[in-house]
Amino acid sequence: MRITVLAGGIGGARFLRGLKAAAPDAEITVVGNTGDDIHLFGLKVCPDLDTLMYTLGGGIHEEQGWGRAEETWSVKGELAAYGVGPSWFGLGDKDFATHIVRTQMLAAGYPLSAVTEALCDRWQPGVRLLPMTDDRVETHVVIDDPDSGERRAVHFQEYWVKLHAAVDAHAIVPVGADGAKPGPGVVEAIREADVVLLPPSNPIVSVGTILAVPGVREAVVATTAPVVGLSPIIGGAPVRGMADKVLEAVGVETSAAAVALHYGARAADRSGAGRAPAERPAGVLDGWLVDSSDAAAVPAVEAAGISCRAVPLWMTDTEATAAMARAALALAEEVRAK
Amino acid sequence: MRITVLAGGIGGARFLRGLKAAAPDAEITVVGNTGDDIHLFGLKVCPDLDTLMYTLGGGIHEEQGWGRAEETWSVKGELAAYGVGPSWFGLGDKDFATHIVRTQMLAAGYPLSAVTEALCDRWQPGVRLLPMTDDRVETHVVIDDPDSGERRAVHFQEYWVKLHAAVDAHAIVPVGADGAKPGPGVVEAIREADVVLLPPSNPIVSVGTILAVPGVREAVVATTAPVVGLSPIIGGAPVRGMADKVLEAVGVETSAAAVALHYGARAADRSGAGRAPAERPAGVLDGWLVDSSDAAAVPAVEAAGISCRAVPLWMTDTEATAAMARAALALAEEVRAK
Repeated sequence: MRITVLAGGIGGARFLRGLKAAAPDAEITVVGNTGDDIHLFGLKVCPDLDTLMYTLGGGIHEEQGWGRAEETWSVKGELAAYGVGPSWFGLGDKDFATHIVRTQMLAAGYPLSAVTEALCDRWQPGVRLLPMTDDRVETHVVIDDPDSGERRAVHFQEYWVKLHAAVDAHAIVPVGADGAKPGPGVVEAIREADVVLLPPSNPIVSVGTILAVPGVREAVVATTAPVVGLSPIIGGAPVRGMADKVLEAVGVETSAAAVALHYGARAADRSGAGRAPAERPAGVLDGWLVDSSDAAAVPAVEAAGISCRAVPLWMTDTEATAAMARAALALAEEVRAK
Repeated sequence: MRITVLAGGIGGARFLRGLKAAAPDAEITVVGNTGDDIHLFGLKVCPDLDTLMYTLGGGIHEEQGWGRAEETWSVKGELAAYGVGPSWFGLGDKDFATHIVRTQMLAAGYPLSAVTEALCDRWQPGVRLLPMTDDRVETHVVIDDPDSGERRAVHFQEYWVKLHAAVDAHAIVPVGADGAKPGPGVVEAIREADVVLLPPSNPIVSVGTILAVPGVREAVVATTAPVVGLSPIIGGAPVRGMADKVLEAVGVETSAAAVALHYGARAADRSGAGRAPAERPAGVLDGWLVDSSDAAAVPAVEAAGISCRAVPLWMTDTEATAAMARAALALAEEVRAK
């Protein structure tokens, strides 16, 4: 079975660990978000790709969810001693090595997809990891500057890591997405999959950014595979991170049902029935899992043309996460059989 | 008193520590060799400049003579895990930070001289450190490849650090020197100095490379300051390193006297008396210090028109080194009074 997953960082990575356990014989392709990528200290840093790679390759700092286990921090300390910032982004020494290798390969002319493949040669994540694009896309967030009060756009990492999403976001802009092309194999992986899954990643700045690359949403809409997503919202709050802030920025309520409706029903859009307003992008979901505690949301989601089930969605450990993955795959089969 | 020193790495740095102790009120300018510079992992590494900066700024690994004290090695281990080499060049984590800052500034368009000044803002070496040039010069060594037997040129660091100078060197070529310009302030620092010193650095690949930058040797020949050097050879062997190998490559005997004659007498060249063959570069020395154990060499050096004294030249500690510096300054005054 070929399963293709559109994933952000921590949530996507943890879900994938469960999926690998649930479907050990599946060929899993992960289309990774690169909108969080940032140049720091002259080096190309890909936080989501690295979190996927480290988590699935056994190198992640488990409690933290990002960065390397048994990390050291000499480089960061020295950069601070040189007065060179920013200091708010946590890059450990081991992590720096990844960025050094990546930057050197990019400078030598390799596209990010080839670099990612080379890095995965070491990590052996057990999935095929594809950047959503080899082009530069950077998610920016429009905020009111906490110091000057002026409205300005900042890199997503500045909003998220430096400002802790503690200021209102007025808009989320995937800069460069318009002109980006899907990375090698991305469209094929979606179109030729047996199942497409949207893990409980951030629907706006992770999965939303992947879908913003022209050709990717179209591939999800057009694939013959069922497309099933898992809610990153439980009981009106994000499972982790600050998805509520970016949902608010785009006018979506922080609820399991609202996120499903934001993704939109795929069949409805394809048939023309229940079509959203013309400016609204085509829907991508056939199925949606909400947490057991959000069972009351099921009818509203189903009414929108999305098959919906309520199951436990807390990724407390690999077995609980594997159960979520099995529920998603089961829902995909239900959808397919329709 | 303005003292200008043309210095390589470890020997030059240790001598400068003594010179600072001997002449605490002097304005010391150091023209540093950049022919050892190398690009590793996409980063610009300047071993001699860094050794000078770390040694004079209190960050050096004392026993080793290069690299940082209390260093950690996470990045190097990770690069090896990625299969990315070379592994033979020892870059610690703290050291990496220097190269990251330097590379980022160079990529932003700053010349090496400005970058070096910025790095020295932190290190406060107590001297003005000037790269010999802002242009790229790389010392290459022509060897017979130990594996294939073919004659080829390798980067000096490959010859020195990887091959431990254990293969015969047929020629030393400062690639790019022909077209290089002296860095900002270099010519002025030499011409306007009260004393110019050549520390016991490698006369071929350190001081020789500096002198190979067009305009530098001419400045040394033309300065009104006395020019005094200290022998890096004691008792027919280099004090440290493998200067004998590179001396052999250029046909110079490994002896205190032969190195002095290789540098050549400055006055003789300027007056035209005792001029060397036309193709020979103009001499640069007014005075030369040999170790007490090499006192027998004094007459030969003096016969070549270079004032010569025999004093202890082992840089065993700062006080012994300061005594050497005082002897060099005293010889400079003798020469000046002539």
